[in-house]
Amino acid sequence: MKTKKIYLNEGEMPTHYYNIMADMPNKPLPPLHPVTQQPLGPEDLAPLFPMELIKQEVSTERYIEIPEAVQELYRIYRPTPLIRATALEKALGTPAKIYYKYEGVSPTGSHKPNTAIPQAYYNKMEGVTKLTTETGAGQWGCALSFACQHFGIDLQVYMVKLSYQQKPYRKVLMNTFGAEVIASPSNLTDSGRQILGQTPDSPGSLGIAISEAVEVAMKNENIKYSLGSVLNHVLMHQTIIGQEALKQLEMTGDFPDMVIAPFGGGSNFAGIAFPFLHLNLTQGKKVECIAVEPTSCPKLTKGKFRYDYGDTVGMVPLLPMYTLGHDFVPPSIHAGGLRYHGAGVIVSQLLKDGLISARSVKQSECFAAGMLFAQTEGILPAPEANHAIATVIAEAKKAKETGEAKTILFNLCGHGHFDLHAYEQYLGGNLVDHELTDAEIEYALESLEKSIQMK
Amino acid sequence: MKTKKIYLNEGEMPTHYYNIMADMPNKPLPPLHPVTQQPLGPEDLAPLFPMELIKQEVSTERYIEIPEAVQELYRIYRPTPLIRATALEKALGTPAKIYYKYEGVSPTGSHKPNTAIPQAYYNKMEGVTKLTTETGAGQWGCALSFACQHFGIDLQVYMVKLSYQQKPYRKVLMNTFGAEVIASPSNLTDSGRQILGQTPDSPGSLGIAISEAVEVAMKNENIKYSLGSVLNHVLMHQTIIGQEALKQLEMTGDFPDMVIAPFGGGSNFAGIAFPFLHLNLTQGKKVECIAVEPTSCPKLTKGKFRYDYGDTVGMVPLLPMYTLGHDFVPPSIHAGGLRYHGAGVIVSQLLKDGLISARSVKQSECFAAGMLFAQTEGILPAPEANHAIATVIAEAKKAKETGEAKTILFNLCGHGHFDLHAYEQYLGGNLVDHELTDAEIEYALESLEKSIQMK
Repeated sequence: MKTKKIYLNEGEMPTHYYNIMADMPNKPLPPLHPVTQQPLGPEDLAPLFPMELIKQEVSTERYIEIPEAVQELYRIYRPTPLIRATALEKALGTPAKIYYKYEGVSPTGSHKPNTAIPQAYYNKMEGVTKLTTETGAGQWGCALSFACQHFGIDLQVYMVKLSYQQKPYRKVLMNTFGAEVIASPSNLTDSGRQILGQTPDSPGSLGIAISEAVEVAMKNENIKYSLGSVLNHVLMHQTIIGQEALKQLEMTGDFPDMVIAPFGGGSNFAGIAFPFLHLNLTQGKKVECIAVEPTSCPKLTKGKFRYDYGDTVGMVPLLPMYTLGHDFVPPSIHAGGLRYHGAGVIVSQLLKDGLISARSVKQSECFAAGMLFAQTEGILPAPEANHAIATVIAEAKKAKETGEAKTILFNLCGHGHFDLHAYEQYLGGNLVDHELTDAEIEYALESLEKSIQMK
Repeated sequence: MKTKKIYLNEGEMPTHYYNIMADMPNKPLPPLHPVTQQPLGPEDLAPLFPMELIKQEVSTERYIEIPEAVQELYRIYRPTPLIRATALEKALGTPAKIYYKYEGVSPTGSHKPNTAIPQAYYNKMEGVTKLTTETGAGQWGCALSFACQHFGIDLQVYMVKLSYQQKPYRKVLMNTFGAEVIASPSNLTDSGRQILGQTPDSPGSLGIAISEAVEVAMKNENIKYSLGSVLNHVLMHQTIIGQEALKQLEMTGDFPDMVIAPFGGGSNFAGIAFPFLHLNLTQGKKVECIAVEPTSCPKLTKGKFRYDYGDTVGMVPLLPMYTLGHDFVPPSIHAGGLRYHGAGVIVSQLLKDGLISARSVKQSECFAAGMLFAQTEGILPAPEANHAIATVIAEAKKAKETGEAKTILFNLCGHGHFDLHAYEQYLGGNLVDHELTDAEIEYALESLEKSIQMK
């Protein structure tokens, strides 16, 4: 019998993370010291991260084993279901087969615990007692709160002020898991005070929040820092999503023509796409992997590939990436998790090499897609996830025109139970679209050129 | 391998509802006409319900088949997982085995779609184009909105004013599924105007909201009414929960010593407990079935068994039940789904006959239990579910003292993603307990005696 939901047993959960570095034809350029611009060594990262994560960051081993304590905590919600979007297909009248991997079943409702759990674990193993981090929409902050609470680590979260105001209940959820939550930019750090000095009413951004969280870790020997996306080890932890999806699709007899995911810093996309890119790179498969970003923050489709800071203030290493500039503050959209100026290093290199593609979607189109998805499939998606859904719907309509029975897989990275304020605005006709003009992008990129002169 | 989560295949989903009426040693007394006090016939209920549901309401058949269209929509989220609360057990250091059936995976996050879907379906089959209903915490309203949207039926929801104010996002979710939502008591009905005339700042209650919704259906030939608990057919639809749990427990080799569920009108409790009571009644098993209500609305533990109206204004039939009186307005607690003055007819009869038991728990104890559950198991429970969890924890601690390895099953009827305002109050130390005094209960019951004189 063909079923709507495809489950794996807990015993079929992946036992290793997949590291795409092993298979990339062109390895990424190295991160550089923010001041000297010299390639970084592990010792440069040691004030921020435990050694095991630094090793993973630079590893070229294809598979890295998942510790048993991490697997045990994963089993609270993993393996996650793969679901055939039969009701959506029917509503669209498309011959396309649409599957989604549903990560919203995790404790905090998104894919973020997949990396929060190992990050908290490795820190714990090396004796770390306190972490700092940033959060945009709050999904990462909630995930790390849950993981830190489990492993007995204190956590301080710098939450982008816009989201802090839009999503008060995300803060309560972090408090429930014992974390301290601070609206960013704050007066607690030099970085925050610098931003507030320039822009007292700043809505904040992920770049600013990272500066604050990193600063606290740099200045306190006993505190380390944790990042929810962008970095290689973070992307790698998420590959359990795609590995599970691959096994689950095998059970259906289908294989995807395309894999689609929202794009913020890269962990969402990498998580579902990298295990399929592995097949492209090693077995000659041709799965089209599409990263979808908001038109308000189009670094992949309109940004520039060059070295830039991962944070606004310029405290963290220079990374080779597609970027709109570290001091670009994206317009205030509801998909807070996608309001980041740059793209992860690995994903940037893959895009540069033409191995993946990217698109951008307007906010209103995203919410229209999310509404249709909720009304058919019954799950109210997170605004970030709506970027993937809008693209899936466009592809399914294209398949209807051409009559091609394409198989599409996408990452439903989380539910929208904490985003009803955004849906309320959409229903009330009060949602504003932000499409950056060419002039705005040109200005941002020129400003970036001026601010970082490479030696 | 023993797993934490026990799944059934979609093919193993129950195909029939279980009707405990077939097995009850004493059948319930009949419902009576609210004015004549004569036993009701099907024709008396026809203005409110489609004939198929009226038949189910009075049926004594043991099993009633679930229509294929209903099963198809169930497959969006069913079968739901049974989960072993290993992390909670560890935190408590108890020898007890704790299992929970997790109904929060449904489209609207609670067990309510289990009956919303068949109710919408049977109405659709009989040509009904519009329904009215009441909702407390909003879980029932959301579930019926989803089901009506699927089957193309318009819906008007009277939402208890207290919840309407406390949980604005529940309203948005209903709007997302196309429903119209009205704060009750409202000025749209005679019932609402009557209450507002007496108590202009009334926080509302389920009893009042029922009066309003029923009035609209009574006065409009094309509109029928739908109820989310209390009635026999509603309780019966929920028995798919316990039937699934029974199969899943068989897979583990365990059998419950006790089954615990929150109690509002009875559907939550009936859903998980009735299939086990079936074994008690027909196979000599001795599963202890415990219904848990708030101390602020203790109809099972301190109410009186007698005929009373199901609504505040006295428009619906007189039902033989444990009640605090139809005009009793429960204190404003966060478990809005449990703020109902009476208990379903079948459950009342079972309690009277000593076949089940009941307890009450204070609000603060419930939230403390919910916090511990979230921190260990990773799921933030609905305030209603916390009543079951508090009782489970008390039993697990008792098992620790006695050393008995009891097996406990409970219904985790929903998540608390829309209840973070309540958790915020708890975390801030601002949650107030409401325990009714004996004098308050005596007054309520005397008032009931005066208001309904049985002929």
